[in-house]
Amino acid sequence: MADILKKDAFLLPENVIYLDGNSLGPLPRAVPARVQAMMADEWGEMLIRGWNKADWMGQPSRVGDMVARIIGAPDGSVVMGDTLSIKVFQALSSGLKLRKDRRVILSDNGNFPSDLYMAEGLVKLLEQGYELRTVAPEEVMDAISEDIAVVMLTEVDYRTGRKHDMKTVTELAHAKGAVMVWDLAHSAGALPVDMTASNAEFAVGCTYKYLNGGPGAPGFIYVRPDLADTVEPALAGWLGHRQPFEFDLSYAPGHGVERMRVGTPPVIQLTALEVAMELWADVDMNDLRAASIALQEQFIAEIERDVPALTLASPRDAAIRGSQVSWRFEHGYAAMQAVIDRGVIGDFRAPDIMRFGFTPLYIDSADVSAAVRIIADVMNNNLWDDDAYKVKSRVT
Amino acid sequence: MADILKKDAFLLPENVIYLDGNSLGPLPRAVPARVQAMMADEWGEMLIRGWNKADWMGQPSRVGDMVARIIGAPDGSVVMGDTLSIKVFQALSSGLKLRKDRRVILSDNGNFPSDLYMAEGLVKLLEQGYELRTVAPEEVMDAISEDIAVVMLTEVDYRTGRKHDMKTVTELAHAKGAVMVWDLAHSAGALPVDMTASNAEFAVGCTYKYLNGGPGAPGFIYVRPDLADTVEPALAGWLGHRQPFEFDLSYAPGHGVERMRVGTPPVIQLTALEVAMELWADVDMNDLRAASIALQEQFIAEIERDVPALTLASPRDAAIRGSQVSWRFEHGYAAMQAVIDRGVIGDFRAPDIMRFGFTPLYIDSADVSAAVRIIADVMNNNLWDDDAYKVKSRVT
Repeated sequence: MADILKKDAFLLPENVIYLDGNSLGPLPRAVPARVQAMMADEWGEMLIRGWNKADWMGQPSRVGDMVARIIGAPDGSVVMGDTLSIKVFQALSSGLKLRKDRRVILSDNGNFPSDLYMAEGLVKLLEQGYELRTVAPEEVMDAISEDIAVVMLTEVDYRTGRKHDMKTVTELAHAKGAVMVWDLAHSAGALPVDMTASNAEFAVGCTYKYLNGGPGAPGFIYVRPDLADTVEPALAGWLGHRQPFEFDLSYAPGHGVERMRVGTPPVIQLTALEVAMELWADVDMNDLRAASIALQEQFIAEIERDVPALTLASPRDAAIRGSQVSWRFEHGYAAMQAVIDRGVIGDFRAPDIMRFGFTPLYIDSADVSAAVRIIADVMNNNLWDDDAYKVKSRVT
Repeated sequence: MADILKKDAFLLPENVIYLDGNSLGPLPRAVPARVQAMMADEWGEMLIRGWNKADWMGQPSRVGDMVARIIGAPDGSVVMGDTLSIKVFQALSSGLKLRKDRRVILSDNGNFPSDLYMAEGLVKLLEQGYELRTVAPEEVMDAISEDIAVVMLTEVDYRTGRKHDMKTVTELAHAKGAVMVWDLAHSAGALPVDMTASNAEFAVGCTYKYLNGGPGAPGFIYVRPDLADTVEPALAGWLGHRQPFEFDLSYAPGHGVERMRVGTPPVIQLTALEVAMELWADVDMNDLRAASIALQEQFIAEIERDVPALTLASPRDAAIRGSQVSWRFEHGYAAMQAVIDRGVIGDFRAPDIMRFGFTPLYIDSADVSAAVRIIADVMNNNLWDDDAYKVKSRVT
């Protein structure tokens, strides 16, 4: 297995083992200076001319291509902007327009709530009998019936790490005449994804987790190339217009996935992300996956050996697990706070999930063992205290 | 008139007179170091804990309050996020739900195209006979009939600078039973706005123009406080949920304008904006308006004295003009490029508008005279060349 560790590329705090890169990736070392330069040399010196001279205008597509390479999608099929929630809305609304004879969006209750909320908001907006139907993750396959317009799933469950089989689910969705939308929030940068092979119509994702783009880094959307010139963008912003600087009074969708651009792109935020994405140029996603699984297997074995209070909530089979390991514990919130206070950062997800993410670019086997020692100390010696941690976690 | 010039607070390039702050404001001097510190000390050191410890989570409302003070709105009535185009969609979709018995959005053809496109996209998404009706700016009052659900206007026309009377239009809209949405893109930071007195239901705007938040700075939305707990957010994202960290499966809108939050806020971009907004703490908007009008009147008088080729496109009456002066010239695109090449930065808007913005925080009377001398030199000596400037401007 190739060594893909590049700890030196990140500015990691002292005395911290960061097992929460699946929530917010750490700061790549090169980012601050490059963002500083963008502000001083581009915004400051070029002013409005930066849109052309520094090609801020091309940035959402340029960075989109960098993301495309991580998710097995061709150049020109991904564009950046706004947030993952907005991208979910775009994919769902465009998906429904591709199946106007049907009224049901199918998802599962392991999907990230914001995806379900966005679907709920869309359904309520549309009226006319539109419906969001939600089933348990393991019931999705049976629930893909011929009244489903769009199947929307997050490949890797944000709580348990349980992983859907993208290819199998997509094939069934298509067999039943439904459009497929994948949320890659916990996939992009975490494991190999092959959008082209999946044949799914849409994918969306965020870039502040495994891709290390920083807090509030923009979302992305992929549209299958054969559809990109026909899908109707419900969020018809001027930068998705065919000729934005003609200032026509009527909307004409741009070429391909460019039509999924909406308003003015967040140039400062995109610059941080663009620098962060450069770290992926030499990463083989199969090597990354192998390294991730090795770290997870080590973590499960050592926790099960040393910490009897924790019950595995993630699938035991690595093949159907993303890049995180979750445990159930009744007092998980307080316990996680105590673990964090001792330098091992994971996070808590209601109602009782203690979640740890594995990111082989900056976490190695020694980190895993050191983390287990601290977790064992906290759990086995009851160093957590429900009363001391009344405030709910606000991590994303 | 109080002196409100604070040139030293901005990093302005040498040999440039910047009359395009109505497109992209310049770099406030304090921004780079503060953004750098946010990246190193918060993202880098706190990692995921920054959401609480650095209160990233409260930033969209905290910065919203800073914007609220500029537009005559109370604390807690404005929230930041995404882009102006997304905020337009939120205001329109919520507005339509307040008038379910009507189907027409009324706007004018002086509105910024993206606003019209977003309305067009929404109408097309909704079907059921929804319609966008667009008239000339001077015909708006006559067109507010009793079938109008929502009137959506930009207070200051992006091309001519012509200014609607917010109070009068809103009163008529309400008299006819319509909901009012104001776009303050060319108002916020440009002239006094009194959202409370206007009584309008919604306002939206951007922060990269007069508010100097940087390229791609987020948009804002204002919801009239008496409605904020009842409006339905069509973009129902998790950070607009009442209890986002409960991870409920169903959406429950947050308190007040917080429900207009959607996805994860762009923290780096918001930090630049937050620093930029600090410059407004001691600015009296009436003083700013007086200074802006004085600069504009000087510019009009000197251009009309020295540059016969230019025809005023903006209203001559300062009371109905925003903070810009626009001129018509058949070869405006090439002429503006030639002027820019000589250090006076304005911009061009199709088909024939040469536009100059006046921003009294960093432009003074001497700048105006110096700009006129350069414009006169270019125009009177035919220093522009249609052939030399074939590429369309891409400034926003």
